[in-house]
Amino acid sequence: MKILIKGKKKHMQSVFFEDNKLKLIDQRILPFKVKIISINSFAKAAEAIKNMTVRGAPAIGVTAAYGYALAIQKANEKNVLKKLKKAEHSLKNSRPTAYDLFYALERMKKTVNEALKKHDLSKTKKIALSEAKKIETETINAGKMIGFYGSKLIKKNARILTHCNAGWLAFVDYGSALSPIYFAARQGKKPFVFVDETRPRLQGAKLTAFELLNEGIKHKIIADNTAGLLMQKKEIDLCIVGADRIALNGDTANKIGTYEKAVLAKENNIPFYVAAPISTFDFKCKDGKKIPIEERNEKEVLEVSGIRNKRIESIRITAKECHALNYAFDVTPAKYVTAIITEFGIIKAKKKEILKLKKG
Amino acid sequence: MKILIKGKKKHMQSVFFEDNKLKLIDQRILPFKVKIISINSFAKAAEAIKNMTVRGAPAIGVTAAYGYALAIQKANEKNVLKKLKKAEHSLKNSRPTAYDLFYALERMKKTVNEALKKHDLSKTKKIALSEAKKIETETINAGKMIGFYGSKLIKKNARILTHCNAGWLAFVDYGSALSPIYFAARQGKKPFVFVDETRPRLQGAKLTAFELLNEGIKHKIIADNTAGLLMQKKEIDLCIVGADRIALNGDTANKIGTYEKAVLAKENNIPFYVAAPISTFDFKCKDGKKIPIEERNEKEVLEVSGIRNKRIESIRITAKECHALNYAFDVTPAKYVTAIITEFGIIKAKKKEILKLKKG
Repeated sequence: MKILIKGKKKHMQSVFFEDNKLKLIDQRILPFKVKIISINSFAKAAEAIKNMTVRGAPAIGVTAAYGYALAIQKANEKNVLKKLKKAEHSLKNSRPTAYDLFYALERMKKTVNEALKKHDLSKTKKIALSEAKKIETETINAGKMIGFYGSKLIKKNARILTHCNAGWLAFVDYGSALSPIYFAARQGKKPFVFVDETRPRLQGAKLTAFELLNEGIKHKIIADNTAGLLMQKKEIDLCIVGADRIALNGDTANKIGTYEKAVLAKENNIPFYVAAPISTFDFKCKDGKKIPIEERNEKEVLEVSGIRNKRIESIRITAKECHALNYAFDVTPAKYVTAIITEFGIIKAKKKEILKLKKG
Repeated sequence: MKILIKGKKKHMQSVFFEDNKLKLIDQRILPFKVKIISINSFAKAAEAIKNMTVRGAPAIGVTAAYGYALAIQKANEKNVLKKLKKAEHSLKNSRPTAYDLFYALERMKKTVNEALKKHDLSKTKKIALSEAKKIETETINAGKMIGFYGSKLIKKNARILTHCNAGWLAFVDYGSALSPIYFAARQGKKPFVFVDETRPRLQGAKLTAFELLNEGIKHKIIADNTAGLLMQKKEIDLCIVGADRIALNGDTANKIGTYEKAVLAKENNIPFYVAAPISTFDFKCKDGKKIPIEERNEKEVLEVSGIRNKRIESIRITAKECHALNYAFDVTPAKYVTAIITEFGIIKAKKKEILKLKKG
């Protein structure tokens, strides 16, 4: 999608492979600076996931795929298996909640193992990179199709609430929750977006608002506390959020606060949609209780980063002796989810329909 | 209650009258600096309410009472009525939602008008100040009694959620929502408090956490998005919040986000208590739809203030072209309120019980 660099709009992906290197837009310093990070090892890919240079479930998945592919590029016949095992371990342990990471790694592992049996190492190296590229392309296409199907749910002048960032930054391109909005805008429906700022890391205020700005879509940022009032006042027509992991029964892990908005939407009879590609579905996970919820450093709550005098700075918002509790995700039980928008169409958040998705 | 000044704890009120001046703790720079502002005119009192040097419904009420009393101190026989009218207008228009402001002004006006009929101006000046002092004392005592009654709802080791700041800073002394917690702590019940940081102005992270710290009560700050997850995980036993205005049917206006937490509490079968003195009840207001909701400057959302290198600074958290919508309050319908803790006991959020309160 479009990004503003030095006053000029240019098309860009949040994750791409160029000159034998994995390239990531550094999402920690957006919207203040656009900086591309080059990565040439699995260790650096894992680190970029861990420190949130790259974030968003599908973008993490593609990063992990390329990270795994990079691991084999420098391997020789002797150390290849050890290297791959190390890469898998390191990438798998970068972050726990987003399922796309595990989906991508499983696919990469399977493809590379099969290739190693059939081909020499040199050929396998190419196959590994081409599998990562395939995951990247599939992700982008999934975003496109989610946009296509999801846009049907958006009426003219619809007022939409979204939480966190599930746009192209989180998704390589297009996005999950934002893609239907981009499609609706192109269809002339003039959607208006209420952007939850999404504390603690403010991905709504920093990333989603930035995406909407670049795409010329009308929006306003709100404190997370404000969504309830707007629903009560009937100023929100529908909610669309992304997902980090969807269990077999439709329970959905997503950015902390999603559960709150889903309960409020139900209470106010407002449809609440989850948008996610098949790579986010954990078919082995029976229900939401089994989804691991990441607890992150309390500094993300106690400190806020922003810009002052053109410099990116962090300030502390509490007395220095205070502590915080910082869960990064919550689980929205399926009963609060009106439907799930996937690249294969819109389905109910029910085991029967999710199983059909698995079978394809 | 206790406040830490230069390493020493000392007892303090957030609003007090000393040396013929109204004194306010500047709540805009807490917890980073403790600074007392001296006020000698109604105009400065109105300005302090408007710019949130003083905030919290009962603290605003007491400030307005003294502001009105100050207006008459400098008046002469000729201009007294004009001055009082000007003071009333200025103070009434400082902030729209908190009812305590209007309660205090009505009382002051009535007392001063009666005094002017019976006594000379010099005597009336004394009566005005003594009525303001009476409102101050009644407020403090109300906080004490709310603590006494409310503490009965708190079991040993209870885990309590609170939103915004309804402690002694908001209440001259003791507080509404926090007073029961202070009483429970003194009773040896060891309460634990989850403090909603309360965006946009972060009164939870900045003020409530600071109060709890000074009182030695265990607590953790959470992003407002986290309360739902904690309720779902059964890690919160009860919620207590303050109020800015309570309608005759029990609908309660309070800091933005209160409605969200109340809906989530009901959904998770967790009691949700509102704590407020009689001065917060607007008996002329039939229901919550009639309560005016203040919309404040978008900068409160787009910028965050905190401390960096011992300096209080503001940083911008979004791209410079972005805009925000900033409602300061929401209304929680009475059906989500388990009970209201008043200085006269605990009542249901129902018209019948609220009318009894009015009659005394």
